[in-house]
Amino acid sequence: MKKILLQLDTDSQPSVFDAVTAYDGGVDRILQHSSITPESAVPLVHGVMFTRGGDDLKNSAVFVGGSDVAAGEAVLDAVKGSFFGPVSNSVMLDSNGCNTTAAAAVAKIAGAVDLKGKKVVVLAGTGPVGLRAALFFSEEGANVTITSRSMAKAEKGCAQLKDRFDLTAQAAECKDAASVASALDGAVAVLATGAAGKMLLPESVWKGHATLKALGDLNAVPPSGIENIKPHWNAKDIDGQLIFGPIAIGGLKMKVQRSCVERLFSANDLVLDAREIYEVVKEFHKN
Amino acid sequence: MKKILLQLDTDSQPSVFDAVTAYDGGVDRILQHSSITPESAVPLVHGVMFTRGGDDLKNSAVFVGGSDVAAGEAVLDAVKGSFFGPVSNSVMLDSNGCNTTAAAAVAKIAGAVDLKGKKVVVLAGTGPVGLRAALFFSEEGANVTITSRSMAKAEKGCAQLKDRFDLTAQAAECKDAASVASALDGAVAVLATGAAGKMLLPESVWKGHATLKALGDLNAVPPSGIENIKPHWNAKDIDGQLIFGPIAIGGLKMKVQRSCVERLFSANDLVLDAREIYEVVKEFHKN
Amino acid sequence: MKKILLQLDTDSQPSVFDAVTAYDGGVDRILQHSSITPESAVPLVHGVMFTRGGDDLKNSAVFVGGSDVAAGEAVLDAVKGSFFGPVSNSVMLDSNGCNTTAAAAVAKIAGAVDLKGKKVVVLAGTGPVGLRAALFFSEEGANVTITSRSMAKAEKGCAQLKDRFDLTAQAAECKDAASVASALDGAVAVLATGAAGKMLLPESVWKGHATLKALGDLNAVPPSGIENIKPHWNAKDIDGQLIFGPIAIGGLKMKVQRSCVERLFSANDLVLDAREIYEVVKEFHKN
Repeated sequence: MKKILLQLDTDSQPSVFDAVTAYDGGVDRILQHSSITPESAVPLVHGVMFTRGGDDLKNSAVFVGGSDVAAGEAVLDAVKGSFFGPVSNSVMLDSNGCNTTAAAAVAKIAGAVDLKGKKVVVLAGTGPVGLRAALFFSEEGANVTITSRSMAKAEKGCAQLKDRFDLTAQAAECKDAASVASALDGAVAVLATGAAGKMLLPESVWKGHATLKALGDLNAVPPSGIENIKPHWNAKDIDGQLIFGPIAIGGLKMKVQRSCVERLFSANDLVLDAREIYEVVKEFHKN
Repeated sequence: MKKILLQLDTDSQPSVFDAVTAYDGGVDRILQHSSITPESAVPLVHGVMFTRGGDDLKNSAVFVGGSDVAAGEAVLDAVKGSFFGPVSNSVMLDSNGCNTTAAAAVAKIAGAVDLKGKKVVVLAGTGPVGLRAALFFSEEGANVTITSRSMAKAEKGCAQLKDRFDLTAQAAECKDAASVASALDGAVAVLATGAAGKMLLPESVWKGHATLKALGDLNAVPPSGIENIKPHWNAKDIDGQLIFGPIAIGGLKMKVQRSCVERLFSANDLVLDAREIYEVVKEFHKN
Repeated sequence: MKKILLQLDTDSQPSVFDAVTAYDGGVDRILQHSSITPESAVPLVHGVMFTRGGDDLKNSAVFVGGSDVAAGEAVLDAVKGSFFGPVSNSVMLDSNGCNTTAAAAVAKIAGAVDLKGKKVVVLAGTGPVGLRAALFFSEEGANVTITSRSMAKAEKGCAQLKDRFDLTAQAAECKDAASVASALDGAVAVLATGAAGKMLLPESVWKGHATLKALGDLNAVPPSGIENIKPHWNAKDIDGQLIFGPIAIGGLKMKVQRSCVERLFSANDLVLDAREIYEVVKEFHKN
């Protein structure tokens, strides 16, 4: 029986990235659907729930993607709400790569430095990837600070973390080198999750920093988010500081995404969202 | 050479149910197209007609689906009109599951009781599934009555049967227990094809009914169309009456749909619509 | 690793013809996208560029199609502009079959008569197929004349040939039998690329013509573009003149298209547009 993945994408063109990755993760057939809303998702999910029975249910699964994470979360809720009793299919959310990218970045950094009880900063951390990174750092025992150019936005991000993941984080405003330096005071690790082509952390602040031991950057479009680092750096040692660029993190992200899709077909009741995907990357990154 | 199915769906999202069923019926590749009209169907059908020649034509076929049966019938006509001479592909219509569902229900009932020359009632039988069920009961030699809450609608349904299938059926108005009892007077079998969650046949009418030997219900959403029956009942014997719930009928429907799709690839000139699909279910249900 | 083709189609329904041909050319999976613009193409191309690395890049490729050749050319430019350095995928343009159809027609004619230094006429040659046929005839060493019902349109076609392919062609106005006869004076070959069902070349002009040795017609809808020929004629000898009808040319076109798609997966940096596709047909037609 063929492994069929129902790709529910909230954008007007379904993601090619997600489709290729799913095929490379062992999926036999993908049914691609675009412009998906919670309402339009339900009858499509019925189409996988009611076509295969019993143990065969696990050969169909659902992937929710698209560039808008909030839209994807609403579709995920609708998908989960469609199931009843034992009649369900496994489902994964990775809109905009939010879960797999954040998981890969945090796993890299957590493998480089002990985070337990330590301060970690997520720069420009109020977006979906930043908030998930904050969650994963917290799962590693770190005390997390998320920054934004506006204190109000940083505090709103903290409120979302509390609300969605029951997580307490600190907010900090970062407008210039001095306020970034202040936010990083005492931190052991930093992850830059800002917009493409936006430099967030000046070399004058990070280089030779007293406590900062691991640095990660997700911005692949020059200039880099962490000034003067290279995208392919993978635990590059600069005077005792280990640095991870977006291409190194992206390589792990890809493997994690493939592995998560593969796992969807091991049972008919998995929900792979933030925490579950971080568990996968941890197992995965160990080996 | 791969078996390619061209899925022409009149809805804005192509049916996942039909696609999974087609893959499970042995199709290698599906080309899914949505929002199909008779006009947009033609160049797509040319794409299967002109890419493979001679005996290879049978490795491409067309499936017409979507929730609107009338729209599907118009597309089917356009598909058939595209063919010329020996250059054709096999095609199947099953919009809203109308053919396979009605065929499965009637086959179950016809296997439970002899219908030849007997009265059979299709409750709320004016929709596409009900009308096809009436046709199939008639193929089994039954005298069919279709009911509606309005006599005018029931008579319109009879006119459609005459027009489309050259079939004479009786009309009856059913508004309450008394009128349902009256319509069922002397009937050997009944099939409820009403809206989801709509109870049509009270237990006080069917239980211990003098002539009624087989009962079928297509409504899977509680309350059931036939009061106090269970969806998974499959020829459940209640004091000599055999009862078929929607899940039991749905299981056969699925097998019929898979089998019909499989047959499409045995020749390049099959048209599987109502009567042809009922022939398939009869062969199938025997074995 | 599966061979994945990204089908970027500028029409609202992606071409079934192109998809079936690609599967028959050995592609394992097609990701079909419709209503593609240069803007919407870029993130989709990123989805093939960034999911597979190094030597694996050649297992993903891009096909640009649709009925509007100018729209397809704009998408092709956007696709090529997405690549950077060694990170690229092979891509083919065949909107409206322009390249493969013209290539097949010219290859047939060039195989039937020596064109070097000879006059060749493309009737109604100002459309995308006609202009590409003019290019390919020129690659065979012929002096090309393109005709139109209006001299202004014929001259505009010549300007496009100069602009796009740096090719000098002659313009001629053809309104009636006399002007067609005049345009064909001294020509060794002619190809009719006019609209469906439009007769362009009267039998009184072509039959027994003093110099005309090879004739091709792309119009499959009666009446034929060359009066009183048959669509399946394949080098049919009529008193020393060799005639190629649209079905004979179409058969070669199909093989060329399959072969081109197959070649896309031999490297990650091929661009198969007009000249490259004509090279393929020449190799192909020899064997």
